[in-house]
Amino acid sequence: MIKVSILGATGYTGQELVRLLSGHPQVEIVALGSRSYAGKNYGQVYPHLGDKVNLICRAMTDPFLIEGAEVIFLALPHGLSAPYVEKALVLNKKVIDLGADFRLQSPEVYQAWYKKQAPSVKLLEQAVYGLPEIYRQQIKQTNLVANPGCYPTTILLALYPLLKEKLVKPDIIIDSKSGISGAGRSLKKGSLYAESNENVKPYGFPAHRHLPEIEQELIKWYKEVRLTFTPHLVPLTRGMLSTIYLSTAVSLNKIQTVYQKYYKDEPFIKFYEDNYPEIKWVQGTNFCALGCSLEESKGRLIIISVIDNLIKGAAGQAIQNMNLMCGFSETIGLSAAALYP
Amino acid sequence: MIKVSILGATGYTGQELVRLLSGHPQVEIVALGSRSYAGKNYGQVYPHLGDKVNLICRAMTDPFLIEGAEVIFLALPHGLSAPYVEKALVLNKKVIDLGADFRLQSPEVYQAWYKKQAPSVKLLEQAVYGLPEIYRQQIKQTNLVANPGCYPTTILLALYPLLKEKLVKPDIIIDSKSGISGAGRSLKKGSLYAESNENVKPYGFPAHRHLPEIEQELIKWYKEVRLTFTPHLVPLTRGMLSTIYLSTAVSLNKIQTVYQKYYKDEPFIKFYEDNYPEIKWVQGTNFCALGCSLEESKGRLIIISVIDNLIKGAAGQAIQNMNLMCGFSETIGLSAAALYP
Amino acid sequence: MIKVSILGATGYTGQELVRLLSGHPQVEIVALGSRSYAGKNYGQVYPHLGDKVNLICRAMTDPFLIEGAEVIFLALPHGLSAPYVEKALVLNKKVIDLGADFRLQSPEVYQAWYKKQAPSVKLLEQAVYGLPEIYRQQIKQTNLVANPGCYPTTILLALYPLLKEKLVKPDIIIDSKSGISGAGRSLKKGSLYAESNENVKPYGFPAHRHLPEIEQELIKWYKEVRLTFTPHLVPLTRGMLSTIYLSTAVSLNKIQTVYQKYYKDEPFIKFYEDNYPEIKWVQGTNFCALGCSLEESKGRLIIISVIDNLIKGAAGQAIQNMNLMCGFSETIGLSAAALYP
Amino acid sequence: MIKVSILGATGYTGQELVRLLSGHPQVEIVALGSRSYAGKNYGQVYPHLGDKVNLICRAMTDPFLIEGAEVIFLALPHGLSAPYVEKALVLNKKVIDLGADFRLQSPEVYQAWYKKQAPSVKLLEQAVYGLPEIYRQQIKQTNLVANPGCYPTTILLALYPLLKEKLVKPDIIIDSKSGISGAGRSLKKGSLYAESNENVKPYGFPAHRHLPEIEQELIKWYKEVRLTFTPHLVPLTRGMLSTIYLSTAVSLNKIQTVYQKYYKDEPFIKFYEDNYPEIKWVQGTNFCALGCSLEESKGRLIIISVIDNLIKGAAGQAIQNMNLMCGFSETIGLSAAALYP
Repeated sequence: MIKVSILGATGYTGQELVRLLSGHPQVEIVALGSRSYAGKNYGQVYPHLGDKVNLICRAMTDPFLIEGAEVIFLALPHGLSAPYVEKALVLNKKVIDLGADFRLQSPEVYQAWYKKQAPSVKLLEQAVYGLPEIYRQQIKQTNLVANPGCYPTTILLALYPLLKEKLVKPDIIIDSKSGISGAGRSLKKGSLYAESNENVKPYGFPAHRHLPEIEQELIKWYKEVRLTFTPHLVPLTRGMLSTIYLSTAVSLNKIQTVYQKYYKDEPFIKFYEDNYPEIKWVQGTNFCALGCSLEESKGRLIIISVIDNLIKGAAGQAIQNMNLMCGFSETIGLSAAALYP
Repeated sequence: MIKVSILGATGYTGQELVRLLSGHPQVEIVALGSRSYAGKNYGQVYPHLGDKVNLICRAMTDPFLIEGAEVIFLALPHGLSAPYVEKALVLNKKVIDLGADFRLQSPEVYQAWYKKQAPSVKLLEQAVYGLPEIYRQQIKQTNLVANPGCYPTTILLALYPLLKEKLVKPDIIIDSKSGISGAGRSLKKGSLYAESNENVKPYGFPAHRHLPEIEQELIKWYKEVRLTFTPHLVPLTRGMLSTIYLSTAVSLNKIQTVYQKYYKDEPFIKFYEDNYPEIKWVQGTNFCALGCSLEESKGRLIIISVIDNLIKGAAGQAIQNMNLMCGFSETIGLSAAALYP
Repeated sequence: MIKVSILGATGYTGQELVRLLSGHPQVEIVALGSRSYAGKNYGQVYPHLGDKVNLICRAMTDPFLIEGAEVIFLALPHGLSAPYVEKALVLNKKVIDLGADFRLQSPEVYQAWYKKQAPSVKLLEQAVYGLPEIYRQQIKQTNLVANPGCYPTTILLALYPLLKEKLVKPDIIIDSKSGISGAGRSLKKGSLYAESNENVKPYGFPAHRHLPEIEQELIKWYKEVRLTFTPHLVPLTRGMLSTIYLSTAVSLNKIQTVYQKYYKDEPFIKFYEDNYPEIKWVQGTNFCALGCSLEESKGRLIIISVIDNLIKGAAGQAIQNMNLMCGFSETIGLSAAALYP
Repeated sequence: MIKVSILGATGYTGQELVRLLSGHPQVEIVALGSRSYAGKNYGQVYPHLGDKVNLICRAMTDPFLIEGAEVIFLALPHGLSAPYVEKALVLNKKVIDLGADFRLQSPEVYQAWYKKQAPSVKLLEQAVYGLPEIYRQQIKQTNLVANPGCYPTTILLALYPLLKEKLVKPDIIIDSKSGISGAGRSLKKGSLYAESNENVKPYGFPAHRHLPEIEQELIKWYKEVRLTFTPHLVPLTRGMLSTIYLSTAVSLNKIQTVYQKYYKDEPFIKFYEDNYPEIKWVQGTNFCALGCSLEESKGRLIIISVIDNLIKGAAGQAIQNMNLMCGFSETIGLSAAALYP
């Protein structure tokens, strides 16, 4: 049993970590930090979890949050993670940051998009981008993982085999649809039920903060890309679907073969050969489901990529990373089937 | 054409007034007051109404809001209406207050439930409770209408004929289901999409503020009542359904006859003899739809009462009151059929 | 007052025609035809409309459906319209067909996509494609209008100015999101609540029947186009949003200017210069709302186009066409503002 | 590992059994029977479960469905179970019937409500009503369990301690709210998205089939009861909430003490002393959550009872019964926390 703590435990991502980790057979949750609910029992904040964890939320300044745990999860608004990371690494703890602060390897790019000072280069250099399907070996050997954003997870997993193998032209259009929980539990007009229900809202105009994160990875596989990314809010709680439009000269069979080659042994990727996957097929799971179609006469390839934004797009992927960092079986604690219908 | 102004024009109730009044052939909207958006064009706040009103929101202190109009609608949080009402009545304007401040005729009861000083007795005495089906004559002759709450509207219209005619025992259980727009546009955790969606939430524990308003009216028809009222939030935007449980010794036929007697000429009440009405049957309309069933062997009568909470439960009823106060046809501007499905 | 009849009055599109026409001041609904509910009063089928129309549904073979009316609306499954159209035109009636049978001008294309015999060339040649913003003059002079599909309406209105003016490259990607009412009231597994709720479902794989309808119009403005169109079902009842991806060498200002030039006097098009429109902005209305953004460095133009699929995408547009064919004001009966929130 | 089969595996209840049993460490699913999908791989019917079970659906006549398994789950429409039960009991198999056929102990009552011949008295007498919190000992010793309906589960668990202890008057009003999945996957107009969404629909008029099942149990605890039960459909997929209105002369403290006495060791009941539970608190779990309030001055007691209708209201409770019948730990395979938000 390893001891873990969660900083930012009362947001949706933090709550999802508590839910999943409380069912993980090799983990003991020893401390929860909260900016808004310090001093309250976790079961008062989330009554449905009162029987799973019996802990009082600690103030974010409480040193036990770092000192008392072997693995620390940070589920904080951007700009707040660096001091905790620094302290934890000095004490040789393992850290998984679910925020954006360590995802962008260039401090300048971070500064430009987030209007905040980036963490120090020394810290940034220790961070591994936590997409296990791509960086599994590096994740196993690091103490600091930058857990990917939810949009980038759907997109990078879909594009990785195709760009690595240079099967498509690097002119990429991505139309993403996200459930409302992606906006978190903070109070914003756009997250109100009456504003989101019976609506579809395109946003990220002119550009969304996940764009540089996506580009950073893509250009490792293909020198230059022309990328367009438009996110839309759709009226559902959990789930994300990206529709990716590409041009290709190869056959559908070739595309399918390459996906199989890259992903057939991946425990959390399902490639549907003859179907577009739907959000409901992955709700409540750590899966990324992929499907594709090709209009051969036009050379147009369409990839559908779906995840549960709070699991494979956040807490589940973080636990997958923890499993790798701690030498556990990668799938442990993450085997739930989709809650359907 | 009469000139109207709306104070609190940027909440959901205010917005609904703007929407309905902008289509009313005898009304000109001359001023909009907003606490949050003063100085902004209304079309920036609600882009879908930019072509219907081209007005800049005024600060709530702007005297034109009262002076420039003949009819003033107040759609404010409770506790704020009295000064505006006072000023308007002095100038001989007509006022319709959609908040709670003038609904309770007893200042003590108001104080006990709202923890605020009630308006002066002098003002309170001028207010008519604006349920046209019951107080039509008084509404025509007053300058101050207290527009009923949404829950009381469903409940009082359902109970009025039965209690007046003493057809039921005064032991009443009301189980109400409300859409989320009833909580308004202000930022509260309970109004977030991810908290309300896929949920039913009973609230008003131990008692809801609409209870004294309901009781105040009921005891005019039946000296003493034992009333239980439990509201529930259900995951939809607009609409409210109350299920009312009563005991009776009379036949279903007698019940139906009495409803017909009271309501057959009412323009905004639909009584379904052999059907329970559903929320969708009234969405987007000013109707209250009623239906009932009787288990004769048990003497148990069930009444279903449904409205659109923002129309018959707020803005539509306010306009119905305005029509009466101004001598217009009662239904003008309120004739939309339900937006189904 | 003109007399109108509706064939297929009990599907969602038919119901929407009844709702809108019952409030149209120059129309009298004289007959309703239904395949499933012949002999039933319309108020039994749709209790919310019982007070608006008091008519018994007629069998589809009843000659009065054609003979008794001056304007006939057909809201039938594809493949059924031709005999009614033929009979009506002989009697010099005006016909608006809301189905697909007269949209495709080539019988071969129709046959290929719908696996049915197309109507006769003689009939097809009389049909005008009923998009008033483009074919207003022809609509005024015909007795037969083929009302456009909902997807084509969003897409063609968005692309018309850009393709006509040759401002964009003819390589077009369209990602559409539709509410569930678009699938109609017939019983299909995919239309069940539990299958659609909390889901996004891409479909139309490999190609959707609206594709040839879109292409037929586009190539009138631009000789050759490479078109990709992916529809998605999203969990809401009414509304449709298309996100259209284009490449251009011109400036945003030029794009905006052209939209203004084409559409500034159009009564049912709203162009938002600095905003993406949302579905809720048009729910319950006959508007098509447009907005755009341009990433100039990449030459990528994104157009957002939204409608209410049952109104501008079906019944409202049909009435707009009727208004034109009958010489009424084009907007009569269609002036409702969006039902928000 | 015991071998289980599921007859009716492709409805929602059957699917939920497959989902839960595929994660149960002591169970092997050996056969699936389906009336609609015989011959199809289960992963074609439910693509999200393709990796969990690799079985071809068998025709319902296939003898292996009974012969090949040790425990047989029947998830069939009412009226179909008896022949399977008979055959299975002869072979000394254990059977859990999730339908209504064995719930009513009186053949006459069954006949009156379901308009079908009841199973033989000999079979009926072997059936134990499968509410483990009440009939645990009997369940352990039987080979035939009649799994309770979802509404009765919420209601009986709420009322059992109160009626057994005679703390309340036997005049009971129950207002239940159910998600749409309770209506199953069969094609009905009322289950369409566009009919259920944004709606609340009271039904079961004049009486619902679950009423005799509830009464059958209540009168074991209290000789005579006057019971009113009104179910409502609310727009969500999973979950059920019953609001129960009672009269009592005892104190809240006494009520709470009795609930604690009966339920404090129950693994699947959560009693919230100072809160009304919400549907989201149990979604995805086998819990029944209870809460109450008492208006002492009026002697009115309100109990809120919530479950996930597909789990504690169907498949989860069936597995809880199987665990008891097979001597497994009662909670095995059923420990998931609520999927929130």
